[in-house]
Amino acid sequence: MSVNIDGKFAQFADHWSPKIIGQFNDLHIKAVKVKGEFVWHSHPETDELFLVHKGELFIDYRDRRNVVRAGEFFVVPRGVEHRPVAVDECEMLLIEPAGTVNTGDAGGERTVDPKWI
Amino acid sequence: MSVNIDGKFAQFADHWSPKIIGQFNDLHIKAVKVKGEFVWHSHPETDELFLVHKGELFIDYRDRRNVVRAGEFFVVPRGVEHRPVAVDECEMLLIEPAGTVNTGDAGGERTVDPKWI
Repeated sequence: MSVNIDGKFAQFADHWSPKIIGQFNDLHIKAVKVKGEFVWHSHPETDELFLVHKGELFIDYRDRRNVVRAGEFFVVPRGVEHRPVAVDECEMLLIEPAGTVNTGDAGGERTVDPKWI
Repeated sequence: MSVNIDGKFAQFADHWSPKIIGQFNDLHIKAVKVKGEFVWHSHPETDELFLVHKGELFIDYRDRRNVVRAGEFFVVPRGVEHRPVAVDECEMLLIEPAGTVNTGDAGGERTVDPKWI
């Protein structure tokens, strides 16, 4: 069945709480709305694909700021410490192995268990 | 580095010839322009993610036609025979394991070895 991406984003409003909207092989496709700063973290076991759907995302590395705009994607390699930041609300898709934790190796109170929508 | 999807599509014009535009883990992100009918085939070893960027794609199954429009994605499960069809030119992204062959188990003259752009 075709999945309409705008339709999925219309179903929620909360920030930094990825929703699973699809799966292929062992990978989840997640929709996330973000605004403000997230926590520094890395994923030692997997690369992570960010695909910006609306708005502008900063992916901070310790030594530089990466900018990802709507219609662009960015791959954070495994083990690289990063911090997503959005000044205004940004909608993005994440594609990564099922079970990948949003806060990676940092953990903490902003860790969420993503649900299917 | 951020990859601009429109910018990648602007770099080629040929149909049914996927270009690799990104990689994460063992997966390739491919940009493809399609028009007309492709061959019936399946991929016994992997699911395949189709993400339509512009236009409209039909993914025919033996028993039905699936429609995927711009801003929508569709997953063809491993082993399911399918035939992509586009009446007018359609731009799409494919995400699948590196080495996945465009014609799958069918092979033949429309098989291409995708290059990075």
